[in-house]
Amino acid sequence: MRGKPLVIVDPHFRRMDEIFSAQDRARLDDMVEVVWGKDEPMPADAFNEAIPNAAAVICADWRYGDEALARADNLRAVLTVSGGFPRHLNYDYCFTKGIRVLSAAPAFARSVAEMALALALAASRDIAAGDRAMREGNEAWLHAGNASAFMLYGKPAGFIGYGSIGRALHPLITPFGCVVSAYDPWLTDGYLCSLGVRPVELDALLETSKVIFVLAAPSVENRALLSRERLERIQQGAVLVLVSRAHVVDFDALTELVAEGRFKAAIDVFPAEPISPDHPIRRAAGAVLSAHRAGATAEGCREIGEMLVDDLEAIARGLPPQRMQNAQPELISRYMTNTIQKGKGA
Amino acid sequence: MRGKPLVIVDPHFRRMDEIFSAQDRARLDDMVEVVWGKDEPMPADAFNEAIPNAAAVICADWRYGDEALARADNLRAVLTVSGGFPRHLNYDYCFTKGIRVLSAAPAFARSVAEMALALALAASRDIAAGDRAMREGNEAWLHAGNASAFMLYGKPAGFIGYGSIGRALHPLITPFGCVVSAYDPWLTDGYLCSLGVRPVELDALLETSKVIFVLAAPSVENRALLSRERLERIQQGAVLVLVSRAHVVDFDALTELVAEGRFKAAIDVFPAEPISPDHPIRRAAGAVLSAHRAGATAEGCREIGEMLVDDLEAIARGLPPQRMQNAQPELISRYMTNTIQKGKGA
Amino acid sequence: MRGKPLVIVDPHFRRMDEIFSAQDRARLDDMVEVVWGKDEPMPADAFNEAIPNAAAVICADWRYGDEALARADNLRAVLTVSGGFPRHLNYDYCFTKGIRVLSAAPAFARSVAEMALALALAASRDIAAGDRAMREGNEAWLHAGNASAFMLYGKPAGFIGYGSIGRALHPLITPFGCVVSAYDPWLTDGYLCSLGVRPVELDALLETSKVIFVLAAPSVENRALLSRERLERIQQGAVLVLVSRAHVVDFDALTELVAEGRFKAAIDVFPAEPISPDHPIRRAAGAVLSAHRAGATAEGCREIGEMLVDDLEAIARGLPPQRMQNAQPELISRYMTNTIQKGKGA
Amino acid sequence: MRGKPLVIVDPHFRRMDEIFSAQDRARLDDMVEVVWGKDEPMPADAFNEAIPNAAAVICADWRYGDEALARADNLRAVLTVSGGFPRHLNYDYCFTKGIRVLSAAPAFARSVAEMALALALAASRDIAAGDRAMREGNEAWLHAGNASAFMLYGKPAGFIGYGSIGRALHPLITPFGCVVSAYDPWLTDGYLCSLGVRPVELDALLETSKVIFVLAAPSVENRALLSRERLERIQQGAVLVLVSRAHVVDFDALTELVAEGRFKAAIDVFPAEPISPDHPIRRAAGAVLSAHRAGATAEGCREIGEMLVDDLEAIARGLPPQRMQNAQPELISRYMTNTIQKGKGA
Repeated sequence: MRGKPLVIVDPHFRRMDEIFSAQDRARLDDMVEVVWGKDEPMPADAFNEAIPNAAAVICADWRYGDEALARADNLRAVLTVSGGFPRHLNYDYCFTKGIRVLSAAPAFARSVAEMALALALAASRDIAAGDRAMREGNEAWLHAGNASAFMLYGKPAGFIGYGSIGRALHPLITPFGCVVSAYDPWLTDGYLCSLGVRPVELDALLETSKVIFVLAAPSVENRALLSRERLERIQQGAVLVLVSRAHVVDFDALTELVAEGRFKAAIDVFPAEPISPDHPIRRAAGAVLSAHRAGATAEGCREIGEMLVDDLEAIARGLPPQRMQNAQPELISRYMTNTIQKGKGA
Repeated sequence: MRGKPLVIVDPHFRRMDEIFSAQDRARLDDMVEVVWGKDEPMPADAFNEAIPNAAAVICADWRYGDEALARADNLRAVLTVSGGFPRHLNYDYCFTKGIRVLSAAPAFARSVAEMALALALAASRDIAAGDRAMREGNEAWLHAGNASAFMLYGKPAGFIGYGSIGRALHPLITPFGCVVSAYDPWLTDGYLCSLGVRPVELDALLETSKVIFVLAAPSVENRALLSRERLERIQQGAVLVLVSRAHVVDFDALTELVAEGRFKAAIDVFPAEPISPDHPIRRAAGAVLSAHRAGATAEGCREIGEMLVDDLEAIARGLPPQRMQNAQPELISRYMTNTIQKGKGA
Repeated sequence: MRGKPLVIVDPHFRRMDEIFSAQDRARLDDMVEVVWGKDEPMPADAFNEAIPNAAAVICADWRYGDEALARADNLRAVLTVSGGFPRHLNYDYCFTKGIRVLSAAPAFARSVAEMALALALAASRDIAAGDRAMREGNEAWLHAGNASAFMLYGKPAGFIGYGSIGRALHPLITPFGCVVSAYDPWLTDGYLCSLGVRPVELDALLETSKVIFVLAAPSVENRALLSRERLERIQQGAVLVLVSRAHVVDFDALTELVAEGRFKAAIDVFPAEPISPDHPIRRAAGAVLSAHRAGATAEGCREIGEMLVDDLEAIARGLPPQRMQNAQPELISRYMTNTIQKGKGA
Repeated sequence: MRGKPLVIVDPHFRRMDEIFSAQDRARLDDMVEVVWGKDEPMPADAFNEAIPNAAAVICADWRYGDEALARADNLRAVLTVSGGFPRHLNYDYCFTKGIRVLSAAPAFARSVAEMALALALAASRDIAAGDRAMREGNEAWLHAGNASAFMLYGKPAGFIGYGSIGRALHPLITPFGCVVSAYDPWLTDGYLCSLGVRPVELDALLETSKVIFVLAAPSVENRALLSRERLERIQQGAVLVLVSRAHVVDFDALTELVAEGRFKAAIDVFPAEPISPDHPIRRAAGAVLSAHRAGATAEGCREIGEMLVDDLEAIARGLPPQRMQNAQPELISRYMTNTIQKGKGA
């Protein structure tokens, strides 16, 4: 390839200026020849013309077909602007050809982790409920107002899923002196231990944790992983924070248990979004509710652009990508890709 | 003194079992001879009989008079169960006689610091407002719901007052990578720098901080320190967290500026408590409101008892107290002691 | 594959009980069917018989030939017991077939990082020189003995190479408040920044760092990277710590500059080992010398075994390996594999 | 007092420019009126003339007599340039009059703590012994050279004394994941626990620690605290680091046990300094020897000046001192003040 590598930039559903700061856009233009680079979806004929010479494609999904992939003789990477992996991509082909497939999931990790802590504290210290009471004029003062509040310091914390969000959340929890346990069937106990995490079985996690963070990416294996029977294992008065996907929870059971006051829950994701106006979770006193906002920050979006440009630079210099998440052959078919579209940060 | 040292324990307005865990109560009884040790206020005659032989007095305030103090020939320490120093104590006498006067303020530090972070995040990430919107059915989803939200990561944080709460809050903020500046007229710049804090003038702090923590104990010098003119220096969209005392703020100005949407505020303390049912702060969209609950946790109360017993042990062993806050001759007259009664954790 | 996966364990030049604790050996036997598992090199015929059914091979190098690899129809991973990648392996074949190739380099990271700090402090605080002086009876006391000593606190530190050793060393340096800069041509600036490291050019690193850690793996590109001209850029009185490979340094120039007292050096690796008895570096006052001991600890060896078993578990469970270093197609041909044999921990 | 406060600055045995940087000297001159301020000892008549108006005296010891103290009507603080408290001062008088007595001990904490870690690693990883072997041409390579070496990671560490040095050393040890136990008879268990330290009895500390740091200031109670009987409790192959005072150790027993190879020791302080040229410790293979250099750094001396000026500023502003160590009535008579003269940093 002569000159700068050619890169197709077709980020639709995201907008160019949402993901690229002026500085990152300038870095991108310095480094590669951008093809398309517009907010609208790239027309098929333009794409088909460009793909044989493209070193990389930045896209939301691979909506270009297998044939286009077969003609991508110079392609070294597919980089998505989403937190999931492309749904319609022929991964076997990519792995055999050494084409890297990269997800922007790590770009959302800090935004979601911060929100997870914010939600946990809002529930454990009754911040949202206390604010509502003040507005309704029925607040209780001092100790009387803290009947169901507890301090996070020193409490056992359980992470369901220990991926990029878990790794970002862990240091935020560290100064509270919590012992962090994790259940993650995609990680070995040895790996978790090497990160300072106590590996535990799911039931034990639910029974022993005072704060439970549900961080697991949706997979073909974890639908309703937190079944009613499992949710009932949670300690009276504990806090469950749900920020990955409602897919992993029996949401009806969750709603009932929270409405009954069995435990508190802070919820950012729902089985349907928007959730029905009369869904009972909207009236549960022990819930803290958030409209899928954890990863949807302007700052998180700009981290996508920064990571994209950093990893394009790596690829252009003949290096492995370093910041985005690499698709792994062992795992790619296990992600619940058909939920990604509505997903975190999407 | 023969046998165990005699200690008067008269904690009223607190209750014995509120401050002493069974374990700490047992340590106390092992170590000293407890006189009184009941929830009700100790009668004057019983106190007067015991005081000449008492090595220490645990109390909420020195409501026993100067004469009793003059007869306290064996007294080595006055330890309060409150977050402030006793109001009616003759400090000059104590300092001359080498009687330690100790406040339980540090027992509240972690509880208040955790709440300060919880409130800051509830405001910065619009947790309370988002929860209200979900309940009212008018929430905005994803990015649309984050129009006034921001991430704490990397933002400049300003501490007004850097005492025990500030020292407890600082490590909670550290993993967010915030630069922490502080204004504290009772501390030298050199001391602040040695703790990794950037000393700044108050106006500069207000103008440059994205999150402002008001942590200053009330003093004779800081009434309405945050005047209207000063509050107007705060950045559009910033967050002010008020957890020490309303004394330090022009509360009317604060209410108006928050109601106007100039900045957000998370408020745990009020000029009158309960604040009037029709006070406009109760309706300000940009406020997160809490009914003086930051330090009023059961766990914080138990830290009082733990610290009391630890420092009684120190005193009994001929050592300086180590966990509670020592009254300093230079500062004692500058505290706003007549507000302590209603104070944090009181 | 029925029953347990079959794994060839042929660790020679290492011994079985050197790398596997009793506990890890038991885990290994529980999980897989071990073939061979002896200290002596596995005979070719035994290997050839086993390889078609092997799910993994643990070895020091791939001394079995391309033909054996072609017959390895069930092979999912080649795991080495060495800190480098196998020299005689057909990597293109492995990458195309999705066979993971894993190095034990991370097992040595903590041992080498700790030694790097130990060596740095021994040089900066003149520990070794001071001890020699005490034994020779010509020591200088108190301040007089610290003429060439300096404190590490707050000094600029430069890492040449920021791989597994750098990542392990960084937290050990953190409490000293050093700004850490790094030069690593295999990493992007963006990635280094995301880890809290300041990316710099090599000349700038040499000119501005008070302590320089040479941590770069030997590559086809970095022979004598630290040429005489570059070494002369180092500050008077600074400390250079060499723990990766002598390959990256002009060792004659290094010896002369240290002998002249231009800067101090702590050296664990040499162009020939043992280095000649009359090599002048053995007499340089400003040197701290170590006989390639940084990674050669019993504890480091046991980490190899732990990582091997953890990653075999991952592979057996259909997961990506998590603890060892994955060979990357972009980099594998750039390692200086013909020096690995004598290498760190080898 | 009109104008600037008057401060007598009589630092002899230290020199003015040794303790005051140009910047700190300028701060001093801006803030107070310096009387004397020379390297030579201040003549008695000049001192006597100045003392009635002095707000503070900076000195190495109070060599001015009780009478001068009685005439010091404006005196608010005595600040020493040494790591100990003045020997010839009437402390009862100072405490009664509210005169602060301040030691510069904290100025040495970081320098000594860094040296303590450097010495510990030099012993645990055989840095000094390995360097000697390389120079003598009898080194053993790779694993053979590490027969008596061990990694610090995860090992139990015991601190004898947990004052300013212990508090500075603890964070340097933290990234190694050591459990830190401490024995300090001047601190309560509760206080140690609140700092994340495990309080233990001395015998248990000696028996269970792999690295033992002797950090205790000499007192009237701890002469030869580490008796032969106690030293014999130390684990085979452990490391003892002695950086406070030889006073606390039976040095003959220590020498014999190290010479016998029972454990290793890194020693910065000796019962006589210089220690006799033929003292057997000078030939003990398991020793790392340093000529009382731990606190004697130029950077540590400049911290004295910085702390002096910071605390003079505090005093001038009517605040308690914040950086130097306050003499405590309970402890002052228990320090082994007659050893201070030759002491750490003295």
